[in-house]
Amino acid sequence: MEEFTDLDRLAITTIRTLAMDAVQKANSGHPGAPMGLAPAAYVLWSRFLTYDPDDPLWPNRDRFVLSNGHASMLLYALIHLAGIRHVDDQGRVTEEPALPLEQIQAFRQLGSRTPGHPEYHLTAGVETTTGPLGQGVANAVGMAIAQRWLAAHFTRPGFEGLFDHHIYAFCGDGCLMEGVAAEAVSLAGHLRLGNLTLLYDDNHITIDGPTELAFTEDVAARFRACHWHVLRVADGNDLQAIAEAFHEARRVRDRPTLICLRTHIGYGAPHKQDTHAAHGEPLGAEEVRLTKRFYGWPEDAQFLVPPEAAHHFRQLLARRGAQARQLWHALWERYRHQFPELAEQLLLLLQRRLPPHWDRDLPAFPPDPKGLATRDSSGQVLNLLAQRIPWLLGGSADLNPSTKTFLKFPEAGVFTAASPQGRNIHFGVREHAMAAILNGLALSHLRPYGSSFLVFTDYCRPAIRLSALMHLPVLYIFTHDSIAVGEDGPTHQPVEHLAALRAIPNLLVIRPCDANEVVEAYRVALAQTHRPVLLALTRQAVPTLDRSRLAPASGLARGAYVLRDAPDPRVLLIASGSEVHLCLAAAELLDRENIPARVVSMPSWELFEEQPRDYRDAVLPPHLTARVCVEMASPLGWERYAGPTGAILAMRSFGASAPLKDVTRHFGFTPEAVAAAAKAQLGG
Amino acid sequence: MEEFTDLDRLAITTIRTLAMDAVQKANSGHPGAPMGLAPAAYVLWSRFLTYDPDDPLWPNRDRFVLSNGHASMLLYALIHLAGIRHVDDQGRVTEEPALPLEQIQAFRQLGSRTPGHPEYHLTAGVETTTGPLGQGVANAVGMAIAQRWLAAHFTRPGFEGLFDHHIYAFCGDGCLMEGVAAEAVSLAGHLRLGNLTLLYDDNHITIDGPTELAFTEDVAARFRACHWHVLRVADGNDLQAIAEAFHEARRVRDRPTLICLRTHIGYGAPHKQDTHAAHGEPLGAEEVRLTKRFYGWPEDAQFLVPPEAAHHFRQLLARRGAQARQLWHALWERYRHQFPELAEQLLLLLQRRLPPHWDRDLPAFPPDPKGLATRDSSGQVLNLLAQRIPWLLGGSADLNPSTKTFLKFPEAGVFTAASPQGRNIHFGVREHAMAAILNGLALSHLRPYGSSFLVFTDYCRPAIRLSALMHLPVLYIFTHDSIAVGEDGPTHQPVEHLAALRAIPNLLVIRPCDANEVVEAYRVALAQTHRPVLLALTRQAVPTLDRSRLAPASGLARGAYVLRDAPDPRVLLIASGSEVHLCLAAAELLDRENIPARVVSMPSWELFEEQPRDYRDAVLPPHLTARVCVEMASPLGWERYAGPTGAILAMRSFGASAPLKDVTRHFGFTPEAVAAAAKAQLGG
Repeated sequence: MEEFTDLDRLAITTIRTLAMDAVQKANSGHPGAPMGLAPAAYVLWSRFLTYDPDDPLWPNRDRFVLSNGHASMLLYALIHLAGIRHVDDQGRVTEEPALPLEQIQAFRQLGSRTPGHPEYHLTAGVETTTGPLGQGVANAVGMAIAQRWLAAHFTRPGFEGLFDHHIYAFCGDGCLMEGVAAEAVSLAGHLRLGNLTLLYDDNHITIDGPTELAFTEDVAARFRACHWHVLRVADGNDLQAIAEAFHEARRVRDRPTLICLRTHIGYGAPHKQDTHAAHGEPLGAEEVRLTKRFYGWPEDAQFLVPPEAAHHFRQLLARRGAQARQLWHALWERYRHQFPELAEQLLLLLQRRLPPHWDRDLPAFPPDPKGLATRDSSGQVLNLLAQRIPWLLGGSADLNPSTKTFLKFPEAGVFTAASPQGRNIHFGVREHAMAAILNGLALSHLRPYGSSFLVFTDYCRPAIRLSALMHLPVLYIFTHDSIAVGEDGPTHQPVEHLAALRAIPNLLVIRPCDANEVVEAYRVALAQTHRPVLLALTRQAVPTLDRSRLAPASGLARGAYVLRDAPDPRVLLIASGSEVHLCLAAAELLDRENIPARVVSMPSWELFEEQPRDYRDAVLPPHLTARVCVEMASPLGWERYAGPTGAILAMRSFGASAPLKDVTRHFGFTPEAVAAAAKAQLGG
Repeated sequence: MEEFTDLDRLAITTIRTLAMDAVQKANSGHPGAPMGLAPAAYVLWSRFLTYDPDDPLWPNRDRFVLSNGHASMLLYALIHLAGIRHVDDQGRVTEEPALPLEQIQAFRQLGSRTPGHPEYHLTAGVETTTGPLGQGVANAVGMAIAQRWLAAHFTRPGFEGLFDHHIYAFCGDGCLMEGVAAEAVSLAGHLRLGNLTLLYDDNHITIDGPTELAFTEDVAARFRACHWHVLRVADGNDLQAIAEAFHEARRVRDRPTLICLRTHIGYGAPHKQDTHAAHGEPLGAEEVRLTKRFYGWPEDAQFLVPPEAAHHFRQLLARRGAQARQLWHALWERYRHQFPELAEQLLLLLQRRLPPHWDRDLPAFPPDPKGLATRDSSGQVLNLLAQRIPWLLGGSADLNPSTKTFLKFPEAGVFTAASPQGRNIHFGVREHAMAAILNGLALSHLRPYGSSFLVFTDYCRPAIRLSALMHLPVLYIFTHDSIAVGEDGPTHQPVEHLAALRAIPNLLVIRPCDANEVVEAYRVALAQTHRPVLLALTRQAVPTLDRSRLAPASGLARGAYVLRDAPDPRVLLIASGSEVHLCLAAAELLDRENIPARVVSMPSWELFEEQPRDYRDAVLPPHLTARVCVEMASPLGWERYAGPTGAILAMRSFGASAPLKDVTRHFGFTPEAVAAAAKAQLGG
């Protein structure tokens, strides 16, 4: 068993006082949770976490996730004391520390690396962006799945140490009340993720007051019902008991472990401990002073870091971490020699690159007036690419037969406790956890995809937002992308979702119009390294366009392109996805009336906006103001392309339950209506 | 104990075959769940549900919620057999049946009352719109809270029967995997809602295959951990056992009950029972025939309803329901005589009206350059109105100190098991369940509100969408409405949310600019009877404008109005919320340069779009194309008002963690920047 000394306790007090001081100086933040959790975090980092501060990117490091992200100062204090090195914008580990004391002093200030909530990409040692509650728990589940998969895929006999890291996550009652965490907890137990330990900061306090105001469930029993191993530690300051719990958590390998740790929010603050006043605001100068007195700390010292405490902590962590990393590198050298192809895969994966020629000779779908649904062509392309990219993996929220995202080739397999090399993940009807787990997989440098119906992006939005905020190349494949869903009716027909998704910064939304645009969409999507992509695909069949008579589908990469032109066009028809075919048919109708029409396929606003002005003006000539934009979705934002006088054929209400053709006709999506709108544009 | 006869079994088979036939005819739908659940539904409706088909609006009726909404044919068959009367668009009960056989035959067809998923408002007997999984469970929790509150508020000694109805909900594994249901289940147990019975259709089949692919938790143990009473019935065809379970569920009054019922999806279909092929597609003509043979049913009969079975079922239900309703009306007559004021309240409530003069003499906030946050003025107005509208109730997702939505007047109280008359509901950190519970409260004709931070609308979107789809006047109060949140950083700073919310049909989004616009926003919001309203409010203080020098805040009701004009304005500054003050300051700067500017306060796009063209053109004169739109949010959609050449000062990225002033300056939201943009518009 571990021995703890006064030096350990000094380091713990250092963490507590740094948190207090930083929040006080910023006059903003959450001191209480770091004060309560400092002992547990210290025990974990000093005695258990296998992590070398000199290489925060080492692939086999243990992961630490602070799901209760408002306790950010806990993590920042640990990163500071550990001396974790800074990683620059190019992803290179530098010599400088990630968080020197000045950064702690700049907590929550513009341009600092210590924002209010921990942000991935900004601060080395932060494994995921947290703050929106529950997300970190699900991210950790994703990381645990990733560890299992990486180990299964790359390990060969004698190389068991290549991927054997553990995932630790801390959370509060807020995380445990969130549905996304409940979903992830259920799945983690189902998958028997014994490489995951979750510590519950059971401090009995929530923002509104005592936790029991709203949260009286038996957390331990709930987790046990989900096949978790549950431990309880009665005193959050009992270092020995905490260490024993972590030991026990690591010993049990066939189930994830929950440690319920009774802590005291704002521990030591004479007037605020155990009250919600310690949660989300500075303690106040006087209370800080009194708390320091209680700790036996110099009352007037601020940002005091006793060198011996920092040294002690860093040494414990770094010695274990460096040793493990050295052993690992020796293992790695042997591995790359013995298994050069696998080693090459791993290097590519770690650099977020793809195997050479991954997008060579992608299929060209032959012209076909009947065509196929873009969800179907997507399924074909995905299956092909997954065979070329071994670390492309994912699944659906129990909609495989509908979203066509199941990987069918024999060696794909299903990811289970018994077959962790499987690449099909059954997420269950848990859209939100699915998306948050995808983030965890992407944080582990896998290339994950997830799927459901487009209308259910609503269930995933907080996690999709975090994909975008973290710059993670997650691939979202959402099908049944319009009212053309048909009979399932308005509950299942997306209307506002394209607009709502386009509004998310750094998310690439692509709605291809046919099978060949689907191919190009995948080409663009998988080439992304720093942003998520969402594919919106049809349920219904759409023609595969004859590209010999139209522009090639490679135009998709520019977001919008002239698909069909006319000499000296008088009217512009602009659409995405299945509505492109409406515009083409309308253009034929207009031809008969000698009205030359240009049809622009616009699968992605974001890609189009990135093009130079010249290109955009060439596609949408400013003088050509007779325009009709067609999308079976909210008109919101289409004014950008329709211009002040253009027409927007869109959905201004929810949809209706009826066969596809009846629904689309009912809402006015016919070639005739598009042609009529075009003629109206010309005053006809 | 109940006795069941062949007549009962005949009625059950009628339900099963109607579901099969309707799905087969529509060539679309979900036959399997209705076939498995028919016995349980039949036992519930025939022996337990207190419901008079002649008055589907009777306030004390038991509620039946089909959370697994894809099993809609189960509900439609019950409504048909029960002969529930149609309710017209005006909310009046008619003589005609809601679902005559023609409607069953028009399942999933345009204009029918039998859409793919049950829709509230369309079909009498449908208590809530379901389909998006998990929502119905949370709606039912809301209805159970409503029953408790109605009983506590209105009941007087001797009138215990006024509100003593029970809430029954059916759900499948999909609902139970969804986080929103987990949140609601936890809260229902916490609140000891003994008036709620949830039946779990445990058919072992999910879309991807066996449920065990993704869902192996011990459901019963999980519910017990949440303080539920759990029963198990081993055979979904054992009518006696099902009846005993419902008896037992009603007997236990201090906890909600879960009945885990082992059923067989597609029961009786020789090739499809117990397979996912029975879930979401027609069985096929031959399989239907074989299934009917198994049932002992005429193989070629379609939509066969044996009159004696229908009569038997309807008689059982209607006799009990009519008797209860007659007793209730007698009670009601005595009640309204004895308690005329309470009776008047109840009548208003049932008609979705408000007490007379509820909006008379609302406060006028005096001009104040320092001002107060709109969340603070909101808190004051809400507290005032709640004292006038006794059935206005709600709460926050554990953010009362931040969203200022706690009702502070002494008699408001907190809603708990022991004090069900309380009007402050502690939802816990369960934003999604909160919103879905609000729907349940609104379906019970209360006027509910819920609150959190605007960024967390993402957690609630599926339920907000359903408020809009169901035309429910739910009030959403979301604060911390921009990057001005400051130090909490990008995870807590909404950017895309206003656009995403404006995209939802039938949702009214209002972002008032000062305390007096807040007053007007509440006036508009509470006057709504058929759509939800979302208030977006500031965390930071904003000046209370001097309306003697500017236009009155009553302009808010028109969505946008000229707040400050200039003779012959050369430039138009348009903003919502806190950015209105930026525009006013910019206008002052422009004044100094003799550039006359008009400032338009635009708190609500939706209200503005409803104004006649004349008004809109008067506020935004088409010839005045020099325009600057300012909103610290996604620019998406602002082109509508900026026009093709106008400037949009908006957020094109996520925010940043820093003190308010640093953040807003960093992203260019200053009077100087607005004035500069205005001058650039004038070529200056």
